[in-house]
Amino acid sequence: MKGIKIFKGLENVAVAKTSLSHINGEKGRLIYRGIPVEILAEKATFEEVAFLLWFGYLPNRKELDDLIKFMSDNRNIHSEIEDWIVKFPREAHPMDVLRSCVSLFGVFENSRGSHDEIQKAAKITAKFPTIVSYHYRLSRGLNPVPPDKTLDHASNFYYMMTGEKPDEEISKLMNSIFILHAEQGLNASTFAAMVIASTLSDMYSSITGAIGALKGALHGGANEKVIDMIEDIGLPENVESYVEEALKEKRKIPGFGHRVYKTYDPRSKVLREYARKLSSKMDDIKYFPVTEKLEKVVVEKLAHKKIFPNVDLYSGIVYKLLGFPKEIYTTIFAIARVVGWTAHIIEYNKFNKIIRPCGVYIGPMNAEYIPLEARE
Amino acid sequence: MKGIKIFKGLENVAVAKTSLSHINGEKGRLIYRGIPVEILAEKATFEEVAFLLWFGYLPNRKELDDLIKFMSDNRNIHSEIEDWIVKFPREAHPMDVLRSCVSLFGVFENSRGSHDEIQKAAKITAKFPTIVSYHYRLSRGLNPVPPDKTLDHASNFYYMMTGEKPDEEISKLMNSIFILHAEQGLNASTFAAMVIASTLSDMYSSITGAIGALKGALHGGANEKVIDMIEDIGLPENVESYVEEALKEKRKIPGFGHRVYKTYDPRSKVLREYARKLSSKMDDIKYFPVTEKLEKVVVEKLAHKKIFPNVDLYSGIVYKLLGFPKEIYTTIFAIARVVGWTAHIIEYNKFNKIIRPCGVYIGPMNAEYIPLEARE
Ligand SMILES: CC(C)(COP(=O)(O)OP(=O)(O)OC[C@H]1O[C@@H](n2cnc3c(N)ncnc32)[C@H](O)[C@@H]1OP(=O)(O)O)[C@@H](O)C(=O)NCCC(=O)NCCS
Ligand SMILES: CC(C)(COP(=O)(O)OP(=O)(O)OC[C@H]1O[C@@H](n2cnc3c(N)ncnc32)[C@H](O)[C@@H]1OP(=O)(O)O)[C@@H](O)C(=O)NCCC(=O)NCCS
Repeated sequence: MKGIKIFKGLENVAVAKTSLSHINGEKGRLIYRGIPVEILAEKATFEEVAFLLWFGYLPNRKELDDLIKFMSDNRNIHSEIEDWIVKFPREAHPMDVLRSCVSLFGVFENSRGSHDEIQKAAKITAKFPTIVSYHYRLSRGLNPVPPDKTLDHASNFYYMMTGEKPDEEISKLMNSIFILHAEQGLNASTFAAMVIASTLSDMYSSITGAIGALKGALHGGANEKVIDMIEDIGLPENVESYVEEALKEKRKIPGFGHRVYKTYDPRSKVLREYARKLSSKMDDIKYFPVTEKLEKVVVEKLAHKKIFPNVDLYSGIVYKLLGFPKEIYTTIFAIARVVGWTAHIIEYNKFNKIIRPCGVYIGPMNAEYIPLEARE
Repeated sequence: MKGIKIFKGLENVAVAKTSLSHINGEKGRLIYRGIPVEILAEKATFEEVAFLLWFGYLPNRKELDDLIKFMSDNRNIHSEIEDWIVKFPREAHPMDVLRSCVSLFGVFENSRGSHDEIQKAAKITAKFPTIVSYHYRLSRGLNPVPPDKTLDHASNFYYMMTGEKPDEEISKLMNSIFILHAEQGLNASTFAAMVIASTLSDMYSSITGAIGALKGALHGGANEKVIDMIEDIGLPENVESYVEEALKEKRKIPGFGHRVYKTYDPRSKVLREYARKLSSKMDDIKYFPVTEKLEKVVVEKLAHKKIFPNVDLYSGIVYKLLGFPKEIYTTIFAIARVVGWTAHIIEYNKFNKIIRPCGVYIGPMNAEYIPLEARE
């Protein structure tokens, strides 16, 4: 067994061809089907980008309207599931709730005959904001806000969360954030979805698994941790000593580092500017200033290790300044990323091969079965 | 991008060290922590093997009794979840139900503070048979049978399904079947669980994903497909033409082929003998005779391609002859395999590294964002 190379974390191991997105980790660039993500974040709507990822090209007016209508017609969740969410413990983690509701969709939907896979993807995507906002409001003793068909996907989520329709600026911002989070190659959650799909299981199973993976602190869970850290630090003048202590204790600093980006994650730069704008608009003197200082200090100390801000550093700050509660940050990530998850599954299944790596056995080769009575 | 090697299906790619089990694919051998699986199937109980996999050694009397007590004390499921299962559609797939209930355990348990990981594993394992039998009986309009603490894990499952306590022979057989299915290296469902765990997500998330993966027809779902096929074939004299047609149409024959075994899967040989015994006891003139013939014909035709029976060929037949309904076959696999899933997660997290491979981008490098109005 010795001498077999172990691909730890599958770093740089190519598993499949994809035409969904490409990361240039050295230059800090991300394209979705050839278009830079910053341009899409600036100019497109979330539904347009979802169409681009699912179908492979930008939709014309009619195609886009059809998708918008299909998704807004499918925002409702099964009434049984609505009833059950009410009975979830108040402290339930929103990612656990989201994972369970998607799994339950499978219980209700898989027995109903088949749909076109892209339709299934759009249907699942349409329901994510409803679950998250519904559970959030109930857990706070607020009445759920039903979806509003006149609002686009991202704006409607804001509305269902807050009960207020977003102005044009916020609506644009919500769309941009969702676009920035929609797709990112074979990251751990997308890869989990692909492993599950590779057995020819169903889409609900795959997405359930992806949500579970995104929840982890090394992945989507990091944006929640960023806010804890910023609140812990409190003031820009505490940043320096905080970072020194963290590094001394060999703790990883959430919001920094990435498997593929070896420089600034392009999304972190866009989100930084959103955070800066919101911060000045809201007279914030804590979140943005501390984070900006943190960025400076960490980059100074860790750039030689190629540690730079990742997407989660400023996304949490943006959500905070938009008024979203910390517990749901990772679900916002999921609401956007479900498009990338489903697009990858559909793409992978076209040339499917079951994903089954191997381990390197380091245990005993011959062990005896000693009968129970003879064991000490 | 061209020239980068793609590791399709991650075949032969080593991802981690493990001391849980080892497959010798050329010789058709499987050991759990050094002990051949056939010996464990013959001599051990399921709880003993679970202990071996979780703790790394065979338990003494006291340790085994403690685990048996802990597991039988934890067979109950949350009363809310019990109420909800009643409202699942009758045609719901048992694997969808199992996946959802485990996810819901997370909703209720994750907010309750932490447990030791092995305890958590034992607790989840303890509840699987309850979910499966409870949903099965309700979906058939039968009253659920509450767990019986005097019965071991495997025998209690038989009891909860059928309402009858198994005799010694069946009890032994149930234990053996569970042991044979408990662990098998980094197969797709175990690997899905590991990818999810590698983000430092929680155990419920990982196991939920693993159940989703096992459901697929290329993995645990195959045992259900075997029975469909055998019923389709009907008589031993139809086997020859059935196989010829399948091969002509390039269909894969369920129950055959394996990523790692390039000869007889040792478990298939043990299960064949169980099936043979049950078949003669039950005066079965269809299931076993057709399957045995099928084995002969497929091996004749495909041995040159290293296609041999896998674990799923005879397991379905054994379940059928034991009187279990086809829909739950894959859940039986899950009830046993959850031990391997949890053992791998715990082992992997000790030297954790997030699992994040990459893709090879084959899409356009520069695409323009054409404004909506200008699109055709
Ligand atoms: C994203 C992440 C999981 C990538 O992990 P990876 O590719 O396996 O890289 P490693 O964890 O092996 O890190 C490589 C080196 O950089 C260091 N490093 C990585 N991220 C770091 C961070 N956020 N803070 C401090 N040091 C970090 C590691 O300690 C390691 O140093 P060493 O070589 O001296 O041991 C990792 O950077 C991380 O944990 N970041 C914090 C969590 C986070 O923000 N996740 C969201 C990502 S979108
Ligand atoms: C288990 C399985 C998914 C392994 O897949 P894999 O390692 O990716 O191997 P492949 O599917 O690439 O198969 C390799 C070759 O054997 C053939 N083959 C594999 N399993 C076969 C089967 N069950 N029947 C007929 N041919 C089979 C393939 O067609 C392929 O032939 P080719 O090289 O001429 O194209 C595959 O054998 C299979 O689909 N078996 C049937 C489903 C099953 O029983 N699954 C349960 C496994 S425990």
